[in-house]
Amino acid sequence: MIGCIEAGGTKFVCGCVDENLTIHDRVSIPTTNPQETLSLVLDYFKDKEVSAIGIASFGPLDLNLKSKTYGYLTTTPKPFWAWTDIVGPLRVLKQVPIVIDTDVNAAALAEAKVGAAQGCDHVVYFTVGTGLGGGVLIHNQLVHGLMHPEFGHIGVKHHPQDDFKGACIYHHDCLEGMASGFAMEKRWGVKGHTLPSDHIAWDIEAYYLAQACVNALMIVSPQKIVFGGGVMHQEHLLPRVREYFKTLVNEYVVSDILNNLDEYIVSAGCGDNAGLLGAYFLTQ
Amino acid sequence: MIGCIEAGGTKFVCGCVDENLTIHDRVSIPTTNPQETLSLVLDYFKDKEVSAIGIASFGPLDLNLKSKTYGYLTTTPKPFWAWTDIVGPLRVLKQVPIVIDTDVNAAALAEAKVGAAQGCDHVVYFTVGTGLGGGVLIHNQLVHGLMHPEFGHIGVKHHPQDDFKGACIYHHDCLEGMASGFAMEKRWGVKGHTLPSDHIAWDIEAYYLAQACVNALMIVSPQKIVFGGGVMHQEHLLPRVREYFKTLVNEYVVSDILNNLDEYIVSAGCGDNAGLLGAYFLTQ
Repeated sequence: MIGCIEAGGTKFVCGCVDENLTIHDRVSIPTTNPQETLSLVLDYFKDKEVSAIGIASFGPLDLNLKSKTYGYLTTTPKPFWAWTDIVGPLRVLKQVPIVIDTDVNAAALAEAKVGAAQGCDHVVYFTVGTGLGGGVLIHNQLVHGLMHPEFGHIGVKHHPQDDFKGACIYHHDCLEGMASGFAMEKRWGVKGHTLPSDHIAWDIEAYYLAQACVNALMIVSPQKIVFGGGVMHQEHLLPRVREYFKTLVNEYVVSDILNNLDEYIVSAGCGDNAGLLGAYFLTQ
Repeated sequence: MIGCIEAGGTKFVCGCVDENLTIHDRVSIPTTNPQETLSLVLDYFKDKEVSAIGIASFGPLDLNLKSKTYGYLTTTPKPFWAWTDIVGPLRVLKQVPIVIDTDVNAAALAEAKVGAAQGCDHVVYFTVGTGLGGGVLIHNQLVHGLMHPEFGHIGVKHHPQDDFKGACIYHHDCLEGMASGFAMEKRWGVKGHTLPSDHIAWDIEAYYLAQACVNALMIVSPQKIVFGGGVMHQEHLLPRVREYFKTLVNEYVVSDILNNLDEYIVSAGCGDNAGLLGAYFLTQ
């Protein structure tokens, strides 16, 4: 049995996952402040027998094993959570291997193992919810390096009809600053899902997400691009992303699958389990 | 002895490289049309005893081993060269392993092995010459996937003082379309190197290259970003790229090396040998 944590900005989901990928004892703990939230996580695991713990966390994270702040959240703008040690308290509680990665990297892995990108060694996974992030699997390994991908913070060109200044406190009009659920709400004054499907908002949104896909293609050449997150529940959105993507790539990259974008840019297959299953696969 | 080919849009350089990385019998063959150029390449190798051949080629290339057009140049805009079989004729001549990759992927590998990124497992290499491309090494492996990186064709934001429409025949104002040597010449009517260092051209150029570095950081998190190519011979350019990079990242990504950008965004170390040495390391 593997202990799994999906550490999100709204809630921490904990569960125990067996080798058949069945999730046991799932609980959801609100993300308030580190003391409160992490002590409830520790309470959850206290009497659980687990052979390892996987953590799929919001970021940015320090994943450098040689660093003094390995396993910490670093510069997150989320109040109270910057420079919080996520791994440390669990390591004191349980003498088992603990593996942490970003929620989006973990989800990319889960999608490659059992989701919409099964059989692919090269996958980009985007989540478009309150925030916007992307994970990257290359040659069947999650990308680390100096840090880990922070795909939400690439630059994008403004949509010609979009004069929004952007909502990212670091970069203003980066991808996340223009296309996250939070950015949509800030731009339109209402939650995105209340906007009708013929609202210009969705054309704008699709344009930014398509740029993210183009940059993914040009930089890491994934075999599949997978989208999850609440904003993607708008079923009309992904087809628009594919259309813009096709226009932007303009047949420069030639591959059979690019003639059939329905199979290249796809919806996540793991649904609400992506986080816990991703955390599970991190430990394997 | 390894047979090495640097296949460029202007010239094909051939050489034989020994295990001490000494280059023997270097020749340069003009890139005219495939028949002419490739027959001179075959002539060169006819009497050479080599145990393998490495090819670092301009692209895009088909690197899918299962494809009927493996080892072909594909959609290159270079006249006469689209859908040219590069590997096939050599395979007929020599019954030795032949490995092909993009010139920029090969250069990324050479820089990681013996150049400016020695000891790094995660490297992005840009060449800024007549064209503009980038190679990517992740976890010590060159990135393939659906195809290979085509880093020159990512999107960039226009510099506020730049109304140039772009020079890329596929995407107009992509990175290459705005920042290659060819784009500079088309924009200003003269070769870039004739423009004085206080010309706005260089501020514009630095802005685009810095965006490329930011996207590299956010997507593949390299430990080092290396720049080669003729345009980079302007010594004032790289410091400006670093400045824009610093402004654009805005301390979102935290790492010691980002406090010392002189060691993060660096000039290529392999110089004119990058192509042949890259080709050599492809075979190792």
